[in-house]
Amino acid sequence: MQNFTFYNPTKIEFGKDKEKEIGTHLKKCNIKKVLLTYGSERIKKDGLFDIVEKSLNENNIEFIAVGGIVSNPVLSKVYEIISIAKEEKVDAILSVGGGSVLDSSKAIAAGALYDGDVWDFFIGKALVQKALPIFDILTLAATGSEMNCGAVITNENTKQKYAIQSPLLYPKVSVINPELMKTISKDYLVYSAADIIAHSIEGYFTATIHPTYINRQIEAIIKTVMQTTEILIHNPDDYNARAEFAWAATNALNGLTYVGISEFSYPNHMIEHSLSALYNVPHGAGLSVVMPAWMKWYKSKNEAQFKRFAKEIFELETAEEGIDALEAWFNKVGTPTKLSQFNIQISDTDKILENLLENAQYFGIKEIYTKDVLTKILNNAF
Amino acid sequence: MQNFTFYNPTKIEFGKDKEKEIGTHLKKCNIKKVLLTYGSERIKKDGLFDIVEKSLNENNIEFIAVGGIVSNPVLSKVYEIISIAKEEKVDAILSVGGGSVLDSSKAIAAGALYDGDVWDFFIGKALVQKALPIFDILTLAATGSEMNCGAVITNENTKQKYAIQSPLLYPKVSVINPELMKTISKDYLVYSAADIIAHSIEGYFTATIHPTYINRQIEAIIKTVMQTTEILIHNPDDYNARAEFAWAATNALNGLTYVGISEFSYPNHMIEHSLSALYNVPHGAGLSVVMPAWMKWYKSKNEAQFKRFAKEIFELETAEEGIDALEAWFNKVGTPTKLSQFNIQISDTDKILENLLENAQYFGIKEIYTKDVLTKILNNAF
Repeated sequence: MQNFTFYNPTKIEFGKDKEKEIGTHLKKCNIKKVLLTYGSERIKKDGLFDIVEKSLNENNIEFIAVGGIVSNPVLSKVYEIISIAKEEKVDAILSVGGGSVLDSSKAIAAGALYDGDVWDFFIGKALVQKALPIFDILTLAATGSEMNCGAVITNENTKQKYAIQSPLLYPKVSVINPELMKTISKDYLVYSAADIIAHSIEGYFTATIHPTYINRQIEAIIKTVMQTTEILIHNPDDYNARAEFAWAATNALNGLTYVGISEFSYPNHMIEHSLSALYNVPHGAGLSVVMPAWMKWYKSKNEAQFKRFAKEIFELETAEEGIDALEAWFNKVGTPTKLSQFNIQISDTDKILENLLENAQYFGIKEIYTKDVLTKILNNAF
Repeated sequence: MQNFTFYNPTKIEFGKDKEKEIGTHLKKCNIKKVLLTYGSERIKKDGLFDIVEKSLNENNIEFIAVGGIVSNPVLSKVYEIISIAKEEKVDAILSVGGGSVLDSSKAIAAGALYDGDVWDFFIGKALVQKALPIFDILTLAATGSEMNCGAVITNENTKQKYAIQSPLLYPKVSVINPELMKTISKDYLVYSAADIIAHSIEGYFTATIHPTYINRQIEAIIKTVMQTTEILIHNPDDYNARAEFAWAATNALNGLTYVGISEFSYPNHMIEHSLSALYNVPHGAGLSVVMPAWMKWYKSKNEAQFKRFAKEIFELETAEEGIDALEAWFNKVGTPTKLSQFNIQISDTDKILENLLENAQYFGIKEIYTKDVLTKILNNAF
């Protein structure tokens, strides 16, 4: 086991009706005026907005609401909302939505207290020194952003999908009510499953030293996500399945599955970020294409772990069988496994490679992910 | 899944040499003067004390050291050290030792800022309103106290082994260096294993609603502890096994395995606390006696979960087989499974029952654990 530091101060409020107390949580932190961020107008139609408004009013918390954040959230929108946050002098950000709204909110929280360009934080030109406190009500379980200190934003101009990380960006309180997630479309459910599996396997396969206990924790997440996804496809109202899915999602990227392992990387995310940046494919859908393609190329580098994966997740023997079974499962639940499903053609390869090579440098793994290697992986995905 | 709140702000510094930076962690929290608590003089012989002293000196942190805390830590010692803490006006407590030193330190941290009797907190007469910040260097992995907000102390006069819990008692920073644990005796290793297994199974068996994902997390802990115990019995220097054992211990009682489950209780701890309070048996050894006895009585109340336990931990079929296998494993590794091994005789039953009935009330489960029931469980242990 490798040395590590673990610290995660986010308070989780999990379960039915928890959103009704959001105002209380803000009040306890002495918040007087908050910027409420959201995505589509759906939260106004389904009553969530009213619930939040009522709770904020009851606790005498002033708020300004700004919607319109899209999935694969973009920098221009972050800029727009940072201006509002500065102008309105809010004390905190309250994100009401999924990972895209929350990631944008984290960037806004850092940008609102920074005189320069918030993109500086993403390209390593500046470190986050302060940030507004972040609260959130999660409406889609996938990214794990509700219990970590990272955020991913796409710069539409430069086609860069980049990330920030800072201990200042842990949400103070995250509300996770699985009932709010039952209207998620079947497509987004299975994309989310792929995202959670991707968060689980990056460290699992790329770290060469991997404690058995951590393996077991990760396998618990993957099995839970696969089983509950199948239940939810047929019965979206199954609260318990929805709840286990959501909590597994949180645990897949709250740091606990990445402790004690040796050096690791995020190659699947790296490749997917290029696909999202260039073609705006849904993040999880991109990942379900990338994972089998990457695994087929990578498996010989960590054969024992791939065999373990095959055995523990699918009760199969060989590395190949495990990878094939995962790909078959993606096909079965209906998340893409080939680039052609996004209408990306083999003639796009050079364009993707150009973005990918820059990304490989950004992810610190350009020595491994050379043009040749990336071409091989992309070919596996065509 | 049941509604829950999860919050755990302890920073974990895990791994080799991490104790060398203890002064830095205190300094970051603006600590100028600290009370260093410890158990036996072993930490002076093996060099740990010198390392801590050096790090505190380097960071200009004044300290007073008080040793002599024993396992099954006692209230009189807590009183003694609270007086010193008050007199010396320290800013923080630094626990260097195992769970007993740490639990005492938590009680001292609360008592040092309280005008009344610290035992008030244990008997529900007062709530902890403030506490000195707590730091620790863990030298024995078992209780999980390094990442939770509870502490257990024995009042020698009243023969009560009682607990406190308060969010103010989460350690700020816990240093867990598995290398510091390699000199633990074989006896204390296997007692610790029993303690960790007990922390794992209390909620697992007593909650009637238990999410599969949480089951899997708990099973991961139990399997890891059993496997690494067997390795460590034969090779105490196996760092990786020691590290996995330690991290599994932390995770068995940091709250994560108790979220989302329905109402649960700690009957095994309840019974063991009476044994410790009356006969000063090592906590883990007491638990390895209590668990099979309790399980044999309890199994019909949650048959499905006992069958799951048998299958997942031992690849066996029936509830009985699972319980027998656990008892056999305790015997194999050499932790007691019968009261006679502590020289406790059947003629002691009434004395134990008297303490136990008071304990059952304290644990809030006196309706279930009547004199009849407790007699049956004790009989299973004779």
